[in-house]
Amino acid sequence: MCRSAPPSRSRRSTPFRTLTGGLGGLSGSGEGHAPAAGKMAPGSAKEKNGTRESSSNVSVHNPHLDSMKNDILYHFNLGTATHDLPAMFGDVKFVCVGGSPWRMKAFVQYIAGELGLADPKEDFPNMCVGTDRYAMYKVGPVLSVSHGMGIPSIAIMLHELIKLLYHARCTDVTVVRIGTSGGIGLNPGTVVITKQSVDATFLPRFEQVILGKTVVRGTDLDGDLAEELLQCGKDLDSFETIIGNTMCTMDFYEGQARLDGAFCSYTEEDKQSYLREAYAAGVRNIEMESSVFAAMCNLSGLRAAVVCVTLLDRQKGDQLTSSHDVMQSYQQRPQMLVGHFIKKRMGCPALERGCCKQ
Amino acid sequence: MCRSAPPSRSRRSTPFRTLTGGLGGLSGSGEGHAPAAGKMAPGSAKEKNGTRESSSNVSVHNPHLDSMKNDILYHFNLGTATHDLPAMFGDVKFVCVGGSPWRMKAFVQYIAGELGLADPKEDFPNMCVGTDRYAMYKVGPVLSVSHGMGIPSIAIMLHELIKLLYHARCTDVTVVRIGTSGGIGLNPGTVVITKQSVDATFLPRFEQVILGKTVVRGTDLDGDLAEELLQCGKDLDSFETIIGNTMCTMDFYEGQARLDGAFCSYTEEDKQSYLREAYAAGVRNIEMESSVFAAMCNLSGLRAAVVCVTLLDRQKGDQLTSSHDVMQSYQQRPQMLVGHFIKKRMGCPALERGCCKQ
Repeated sequence: MCRSAPPSRSRRSTPFRTLTGGLGGLSGSGEGHAPAAGKMAPGSAKEKNGTRESSSNVSVHNPHLDSMKNDILYHFNLGTATHDLPAMFGDVKFVCVGGSPWRMKAFVQYIAGELGLADPKEDFPNMCVGTDRYAMYKVGPVLSVSHGMGIPSIAIMLHELIKLLYHARCTDVTVVRIGTSGGIGLNPGTVVITKQSVDATFLPRFEQVILGKTVVRGTDLDGDLAEELLQCGKDLDSFETIIGNTMCTMDFYEGQARLDGAFCSYTEEDKQSYLREAYAAGVRNIEMESSVFAAMCNLSGLRAAVVCVTLLDRQKGDQLTSSHDVMQSYQQRPQMLVGHFIKKRMGCPALERGCCKQ
Repeated sequence: MCRSAPPSRSRRSTPFRTLTGGLGGLSGSGEGHAPAAGKMAPGSAKEKNGTRESSSNVSVHNPHLDSMKNDILYHFNLGTATHDLPAMFGDVKFVCVGGSPWRMKAFVQYIAGELGLADPKEDFPNMCVGTDRYAMYKVGPVLSVSHGMGIPSIAIMLHELIKLLYHARCTDVTVVRIGTSGGIGLNPGTVVITKQSVDATFLPRFEQVILGKTVVRGTDLDGDLAEELLQCGKDLDSFETIIGNTMCTMDFYEGQARLDGAFCSYTEEDKQSYLREAYAAGVRNIEMESSVFAAMCNLSGLRAAVVCVTLLDRQKGDQLTSSHDVMQSYQQRPQMLVGHFIKKRMGCPALERGCCKQ
C-alpha cells in the first residue's frame, strides 16, 4: 500500500525508511472496512566518507494514485498535469507550517534573510495562485505553508502537501509546525516543543473516521528532532524553551475549558481541576492541530516537530489581553528557533563563525 | 444559564424565544462535569396592528460573561471595550457565512448591488482589521463572515459571532451558511438546502467535547426556513434546488471516502458502498461545517440554514476537474438564492414590481 516517489532518470536511488506503523487499526468491534497496514519497504543507509548517510522519500499509502493521469491538489490550485512539481519543489528539505497566512509569509521573509538567500523585504509570491484556502511561499530549500485553524483544515493541507512532496520526489524532508497555544503553568512567551500530542483525555492518539468507522493513529513525534530543537533554544538563550506534551482539542472555547465562550456550562473550579489533570499528565500547552499533524507525518515518513509559543497561562485566565506588540514578539519566537535550526542543519558558515543574526 | 442581550435604554423589550434544548447531555457514564441544561425564558409575542409580531434575541449560555468588563473577540480583533458593537452591528438581521474570505467579500458586493444599498464595485473594508483569521464585511442589515474549513474553524468563529450579536443587542437574526460540497446522485451544480446535518454514521448529532467528556447536541435546522429557501430556488428557476440531508465530516479525503488522498486503505467498491448507504439515509451532499453550525445556532436561538452547491457527483469521481469558470458559476448559486431570499424578506419594492435582478 505504501508508495515511494515515482522513479526519475536523474534521481539517485533513495528507498524510503521504515516506518513504525501502518494506517492504524479499527477501534471498537473491528467490523467493516479494516484498513490494511501499510507495507513498508525497509529503510536504507549507505556509508559515505565514513559517515552514515541515509535518505528517505516521502511516502504515500494509496494504490489509486498510480493510475491517475493528473492529480489535482485542489486546495493549493496546483496539479501534476499543470505544474512541473519536481522542478518547483524538488529541492525542498524543510517545510514550516502554521495557521496564519500572514505569519507564514513573514516566516519566509525572515528565513530568506537569515540564510542570506534573498532580501527579506522582497514580496515573495504566493504559490497557491487563484485560491484563498492556503498560502504557500518558498525560498531555497524552505517551504512555508499556512494551514488555517483546527484538525480538518490542517488535514486537508497535509494530504495535499504530502502528495506534493511525493510527486516532486523530495527526500529527507523535515516538517515543523510553528504556532501559538495556551500554556499551563508556564510564563507566557515560553516555547513548547511537543513530545507527544494528546487528546482531551490526555491520551496520545488521533481518531480518524474512515467510511464511518474510527481508526486510531499514534501521535508521537520525533524525539531526536525535539532534542535538537531544544538545543537550538539553548543556543539562542533569548526565551524559555521546554519539551512537553501538547493537548490538541477540537474547539477553542468549551473544548479547552475556557470560561469566555458563547456557551459555558462549568465553573471556574471545574476548569482549574481539568487543567490540573492535564498538567499532571505532562501537558504544558494546548492547541488545535498537533495530533493529526503528528499522525500524518508519521504515516508518510516525514520527520516532524511541533513548536508553539504560549500566549498566556490558562490557569490565570482565558482572554488574550497582552498588547499587540507583546503578542507579535511572542509569535516570532518559534520562527527564530526554527530559523536557527535550519541554519544549523544547513551548516550556515556565518553561524559557524558566530556572526549570524540570532 | 441563558443570557439574553443586556438591557438598553433605547431598546424595546424583546425577550428571547423558547429554545428546544439545552447544552446537551453527557453521553456515556454520566460521570464528571455534567453541563446544566440551559434555562430558557419563554418566548414572547405581541399583537400589533392585528398581526402577530414576535422578536427574538440572540442567546448566550454563559453566566461568566456578565462579570467581564471587556470581552475580547480575539479572532475578529474586536472587543466590547474597544468597539461600539451596538452601533456597528445592532441593525444586523442576516448573517451569511462561508469558508472562503474572497467569496464572502464577493457576497457582500453582490448583495449590496441586489439591495441597491451600495455600488457592488465598492471595495468594502474588512471589519476584522489586523487579523487574517477571519474576514467580515457588512452592508445594511447583512453581515458576511468567512469561517475557514472544518468544524473547529467555524466553531471559533461562531462563538465570537454569537457573542458579537449578543453584545450588539441584535434581534430576529437569520444565519445562512453558503458553501460548496460534494453531491451524491445529483447533477453537479445542484443546490442542496440542508434538512438535517448528519455525522459519518448518518446520525443527526454533533459531539462536543467539554472537559474531556462528550456532550451530544442536535443538528436539526429550521424547517420553515428551509422551505422558504426552496421556494426562492423555484422563484429563480435558474438551477436545481432540493432539500436533503447533509453529511458533515472531519476530513475531506479519508473522511469522505475519497480515493485520491495521500492515504487510502479501501477500494472503489468500499467507497461506492459507503456512498450508497449515505444516499439511503437521505444524504444528498457532504461538507465539513454544518453539524456544529446547526448545533450552535440552535443553542443560541438563531434561525439557521445551510445552502451548499454540489461541485461534483461523488459517485462518479473525487477530483474537481471542472473548469474554473464552471466552478465559479456553481459557487455563485447559493449567493443568488440567499440574495433572493434576503430581498424577499426585506420586501424589496423592485422585486415586487418584478424588475429586480435575479
